[in-house]
Amino acid sequence: MGLSEENLIGLILALVSSGFIGASFIIKKQGLKRAAAVSGVRAGVGGYYYLLEPLWWVGMITMIVGEVANFVAYAFAPAVLVTPLGALSVIVSATLAQLILKEKLHQLGILGCVMCIAGSIIIVIHAPKEQPINSVLEIWDMATQPAFLAYVASITVLVFILVFHFVPRCGHTNVLVYTAICSLMGSLTVMSVKALGTSLKLTFQGENQLIYPETWFFMLVVAICVIMQMNYLNKALDTFNTAVVSPIYYVMFTTLTILASVIMFKDWDGQSGGTVVSEICGFIVVLSGMILLHATKEFERCTSFRGSAPSSPSLSARLYNGNEDFFIKHDEESGSPSESMCSRRQELH
Amino acid sequence: MGLSEENLIGLILALVSSGFIGASFIIKKQGLKRAAAVSGVRAGVGGYYYLLEPLWWVGMITMIVGEVANFVAYAFAPAVLVTPLGALSVIVSATLAQLILKEKLHQLGILGCVMCIAGSIIIVIHAPKEQPINSVLEIWDMATQPAFLAYVASITVLVFILVFHFVPRCGHTNVLVYTAICSLMGSLTVMSVKALGTSLKLTFQGENQLIYPETWFFMLVVAICVIMQMNYLNKALDTFNTAVVSPIYYVMFTTLTILASVIMFKDWDGQSGGTVVSEICGFIVVLSGMILLHATKEFERCTSFRGSAPSSPSLSARLYNGNEDFFIKHDEESGSPSESMCSRRQELH
Repeated sequence: MGLSEENLIGLILALVSSGFIGASFIIKKQGLKRAAAVSGVRAGVGGYYYLLEPLWWVGMITMIVGEVANFVAYAFAPAVLVTPLGALSVIVSATLAQLILKEKLHQLGILGCVMCIAGSIIIVIHAPKEQPINSVLEIWDMATQPAFLAYVASITVLVFILVFHFVPRCGHTNVLVYTAICSLMGSLTVMSVKALGTSLKLTFQGENQLIYPETWFFMLVVAICVIMQMNYLNKALDTFNTAVVSPIYYVMFTTLTILASVIMFKDWDGQSGGTVVSEICGFIVVLSGMILLHATKEFERCTSFRGSAPSSPSLSARLYNGNEDFFIKHDEESGSPSESMCSRRQELH
Repeated sequence: MGLSEENLIGLILALVSSGFIGASFIIKKQGLKRAAAVSGVRAGVGGYYYLLEPLWWVGMITMIVGEVANFVAYAFAPAVLVTPLGALSVIVSATLAQLILKEKLHQLGILGCVMCIAGSIIIVIHAPKEQPINSVLEIWDMATQPAFLAYVASITVLVFILVFHFVPRCGHTNVLVYTAICSLMGSLTVMSVKALGTSLKLTFQGENQLIYPETWFFMLVVAICVIMQMNYLNKALDTFNTAVVSPIYYVMFTTLTILASVIMFKDWDGQSGGTVVSEICGFIVVLSGMILLHATKEFERCTSFRGSAPSSPSLSARLYNGNEDFFIKHDEESGSPSESMCSRRQELH
């Protein structure tokens, strides 16, 4: 209990990351709305006017800053602490949407936010201390221990079965197939990102790790995992609705990442039973909050859709709804800008 | 951290209490349904046939056993531990309703149950140890410390203002008025129940406390508080829907009880900041779970009502729906048997 200095740096970086990533969606959405208002052409129907809109680029840069902060956070604090805090970006995003975009949040959505925060606080309080690592070779030893090799082997086998057996049969009908592939690969991404981040941190601190081939190997693994994960996440988002994919992906990805981290970095060794149970409960609470938040978003979408049908909206309202539709449709069809990034970001968490 | 023997006994008693109380609603409901089926007369329209139904009496006895277990639990464990666990009876009740009465639970309702359990586990892990008390005089000293006297004085003033100023003006339009009176009195009920329970425990252990007038004073306070609380809870349930009153009452009552216990028994002294924050988060999680559970009950009621309108139900379905209506109506109108007890039970928690 109590935060070490390293954990504190990691925690602050994770919070900053969530703040930036959460804000980036709103800024980009504002940018897209402005671009659509100026040009009269929607990005979803082939317009690329948003590329001329400075606000969209501000949003893009905000997101990149957030992702970098998240990457660095893994070099300082255990994945068990950093990964679940990714949920907070959804809260930042929901809060800003209400304040700036004047989108109404369902009352149960507010409850979901409260739960995400309460669960995150519990996780932070009980997070294990980051063990001091002095060389990439120590991480290599952790990565090649039998238990973790067995984990990597099982993940590989499962991914192969999913890709070659299930994707052709039910990849387009069952949301779990693509999402499972992303989540399985995601847990390996985070482990390799953590290995690489720690090596780079040590290098910046004066102990050059680039002389070891192990560092370059981890870099290769990061590249392969990120590409695999991106590819299948885009497929999942192209095929299914973001509101369905996001919570399932968050649950599977975060659970598997914690499992991988506990096996590789032995996060829970030396922690009391009560502390580990508290962490797991905190994690369950964050998950429940995420599910609730997404479930109520669906409600809102359904009810507002039904509710707006018989009325005759003003020009600005139509424009707004047009944009809203665009976000959803665009997102479902091509998986490019806007909301799909909302989920794509979780890749690196 | 870690449970002391006293806390463990209190915890087991609190769990047993929740199990019995949760089960009692289902048994009584079964009894009322049978009575209605046999007699053809509903309790809500003046029938008292349920008094001839053994199952209803089994339910009543189950509830009394549960309340007694709850009373004894307060003699062993801090109120900060026992009070929030009252939420578990709602889960027992919801689970049994699904298994025995075949009532369908909304998916978000299941999420609410999961949260109540996760929050309860966090509370149990971080609960303070019960301080050893050797005489009712020690409790008397705690009850007469300036901080707690200030608390009692504020509660009394607030209750007076509510009863004489707000009840005549908006008692029948604002659900908060009666509910606040119950909750404010409820926190004093629990404190006096704990004082009395501890005195009786000591007496049974061979150290007679009945020779002290303080014990009899606490007994008088218990009687006054319980009667006040019962009276206004019945008024609240007679005026407003149980589904609205229950979560508001649970939130206010549990919060005030924890506040009172922290002031009187100094539960949080000697606990680390992290432990206290975890406890508060666990409590917030249980509250959120309760709110979610009640909110989705309302959904179900609305949707099933709408959903069943165009169909032509079978005799058994009509009988069942008739009973369902009876429970709701009966409950709203007269506040007697069935569901109103569901809330009334929280009085003594």
